[in-house]
Amino acid sequence: MKISGRNKLQGTVKAIEVDGLIAKVNVDVGGQTLTSVITRDAVEDLALRQGDQIQALIKATSVMIMK
Amino acid sequence: MKISGRNKLQGTVKAIEVDGLIAKVNVDVGGQTLTSVITRDAVEDLALRQGDQIQALIKATSVMIMK
Amino acid sequence: MKISGRNKLQGTVKAIEVDGLIAKVNVDVGGQTLTSVITRDAVEDLALRQGDQIQALIKATSVMIMK
Amino acid sequence: MKISGRNKLQGTVKAIEVDGLIAKVNVDVGGQTLTSVITRDAVEDLALRQGDQIQALIKATSVMIMK
Amino acid sequence: MKISGRNKLQGTVKAIEVDGLIAKVNVDVGGQTLTSVITRDAVEDLALRQGDQIQALIKATSVMIMK
Amino acid sequence: MKISGRNKLQGTVKAIEVDGLIAKVNVDVGGQTLTSVITRDAVEDLALRQGDQIQALIKATSVMIMK
Repeated sequence: MKISGRNKLQGTVKAIEVDGLIAKVNVDVGGQTLTSVITRDAVEDLALRQGDQIQALIKATSVMIMK
Repeated sequence: MKISGRNKLQGTVKAIEVDGLIAKVNVDVGGQTLTSVITRDAVEDLALRQGDQIQALIKATSVMIMK
Repeated sequence: MKISGRNKLQGTVKAIEVDGLIAKVNVDVGGQTLTSVITRDAVEDLALRQGDQIQALIKATSVMIMK
Repeated sequence: MKISGRNKLQGTVKAIEVDGLIAKVNVDVGGQTLTSVITRDAVEDLALRQGDQIQALIKATSVMIMK
Repeated sequence: MKISGRNKLQGTVKAIEVDGLIAKVNVDVGGQTLTSVITRDAVEDLALRQGDQIQALIKATSVMIMK
Repeated sequence: MKISGRNKLQGTVKAIEVDGLIAKVNVDVGGQTLTSVITRDAVEDLALRQGDQIQALIKATSVMIMK
């Protein structure tokens, strides 16, 4: 299956914090940290664990540039 | 100045394509490619050029996880 | 592969319009029309065609409610 | 009043879960489930209840395609 | 009709530029300029014109803070 | 440093509410209220306080128009 979302960054889950309906997931992407806020349901559905090899999916229209 | 947006990934601009009101910017982030869709105005305002060292800014709520 | 994005609506591609860097895709979801704006690159990468059975992927934080 | 957001999917509220500042709303859209994450304030402002006929509003740039 | 999206800023359309599938709309909000990128279809559906009194609708999760 | 995000609205922080991983920030923008949902981490990183002069940063593709 292919996804129109252009950005699939390979990374490793460093930390997961869950509170109420929401979870914060920190991902190591080539030495840089990426933070994702997803639902608790998603964390459970993916059985997401520290150390997991994952892809961070980001739609191109959600990416800004700073210079 | 600090920004609430949690993700600022260091990268290098690999390619810029402008068409009409919109531009597509490809960024190398530690060997992985990140694509950003921004306005032509933004490309001109930042004087964005191939080879520029930039930061990709992404709000944490815009990041999904695939596993 | 599982995705944290909570919404995967089954649908059929009704029409694709491409212009410059961008494409507009109309999808029939159980008799209702869903419009997606993605990149031309994504349309080509998925070899997207009218009549294709697809899933529309939408992050839960992108869905508003009107009543 | 008209809204530029292209997607207004008719649905029925199946469940509402509120925790802290945030709420998760499950909507039945023609037999498929759509999940929305909105603020608690919005749930109260709309007096949102299970069984309500609503429209899910989604900007076209927030919709991805999987095939 | 009420909308869960928390932000409805009153403003006046200052300029509309349409190109291909996309339009850029500049709105005056109390002396500050807000730029919106929407579809050409939306501009036509709303019969949007320079000088129109409108509301800019923004989901709270799309707003970042800089300090 | 310049940012591709087109909208930087000057405002004053009126209220901050933090719960779990998330915070809700109300900002006065020329007499209108703008609500932002960001992470608790961001509030702490910016040392955000009631009365702060800030800029609300919003990507143009996240702004809808109602008329």
